Amino acid sequence: MIHQPPVHFLGKTLTGQPVQKQVRKLKDLDNIFLDQAAFSAADMNRVVYEVFSYLPVDEGTEGGLFFGMTHLYPGTVGQEFYMTKGHFHTIENRAEYYWCVEGEGMLLMMDKHRNTWAEQMQPGSLHYIDGYTAHRVANTGGGILSFGACWPSDAGHDYATIVKNGFSRRLLSVEGKPALV
Amino acid sequence: MIHQPPVHFLGKTLTGQPVQKQVRKLKDLDNIFLDQAAFSAADMNRVVYEVFSYLPVDEGTEGGLFFGMTHLYPGTVGQEFYMTKGHFHTIENRAEYYWCVEGEGMLLMMDKHRNTWAEQMQPGSLHYIDGYTAHRVANTGGGILSFGACWPSDAGHDYATIVKNGFSRRLLSVEGKPALV
Repeated sequence: MIHQPPVHFLGKTLTGQPVQKQVRKLKDLDNIFLDQAAFSAADMNRVVYEVFSYLPVDEGTEGGLFFGMTHLYPGTVGQEFYMTKGHFHTIENRAEYYWCVEGEGMLLMMDKHRNTWAEQMQPGSLHYIDGYTAHRVANTGGGILSFGACWPSDAGHDYATIVKNGFSRRLLSVEGKPALV
Repeated sequence: MIHQPPVHFLGKTLTGQPVQKQVRKLKDLDNIFLDQAAFSAADMNRVVYEVFSYLPVDEGTEGGLFFGMTHLYPGTVGQEFYMTKGHFHTIENRAEYYWCVEGEGMLLMMDKHRNTWAEQMQPGSLHYIDGYTAHRVANTGGGILSFGACWPSDAGHDYATIVKNGFSRRLLSVEGKPALV
């Protein structure tokens, strides 16, 4: 009648039997980075990020919520910081929260008119990603960037639009500093 | 083009200009506790809990999400631990996450058939509250119980059903220990 919860979210860890782990390597990020020569020269098995997810209901369930923790490694491809694939939601009006628990980075957002802007991520920053807004995270620091996420279980992921058209701006390392160009 | 996020969520604090604070005193919790004599004898201006909320879209917006942090003070009314009002969601299938960041408590949940159960809350515990499930938190420890929350902006709060019918079980302090009776 009194249960222990199945999942724990403590600091930057999300643990428990129902938590699933997904690994994204450079080879999973084809057509994402600007510098294709630098990309081709890199080790395709290099891990760029890991996502731990708690999905207590089926994907597509209306009204449900998912919870995740992402660890994005530091690094660059050419001048561009390691970053997540980026996506719109399939049900376009679905929002999402990201909150940074460790590291330094930038949340890139792009609306349906291809206006792109960014929010700085540092420990404690909480980011509301409105519906109809593509989102991607870049690690601009020297260590791991870890951030939590909560999103509707029926949101879905539209990665294809970003792979095809990208964001309208890129976050590059210019004279050692992140610049949205 | 590069912005600071408007809200910070660090440890047990949720801060920033858009964050709203709501205070619930004993006088706001009429018809919640079992022991009405003990309730009537108590100081009605005693603060039972405070909720800090980040509501970036209008209440009722489909697809949006809200984010909150609740601080529930320790105390009892008769044998019953201080607790939140408890509610179903108005759109019944809407889920919610709670996660404990400080203190000790119990999350009481009740389905539409009035089956009631509880999950133990301690720092790091993450709780998925499924749709169609009333939820209430009781502080069973000696200090403040603080927990985060994320829920859909169109969920709404049905407090009236709980004020009228209560949960089918109560969490009482029996020989110094919490018991669901």
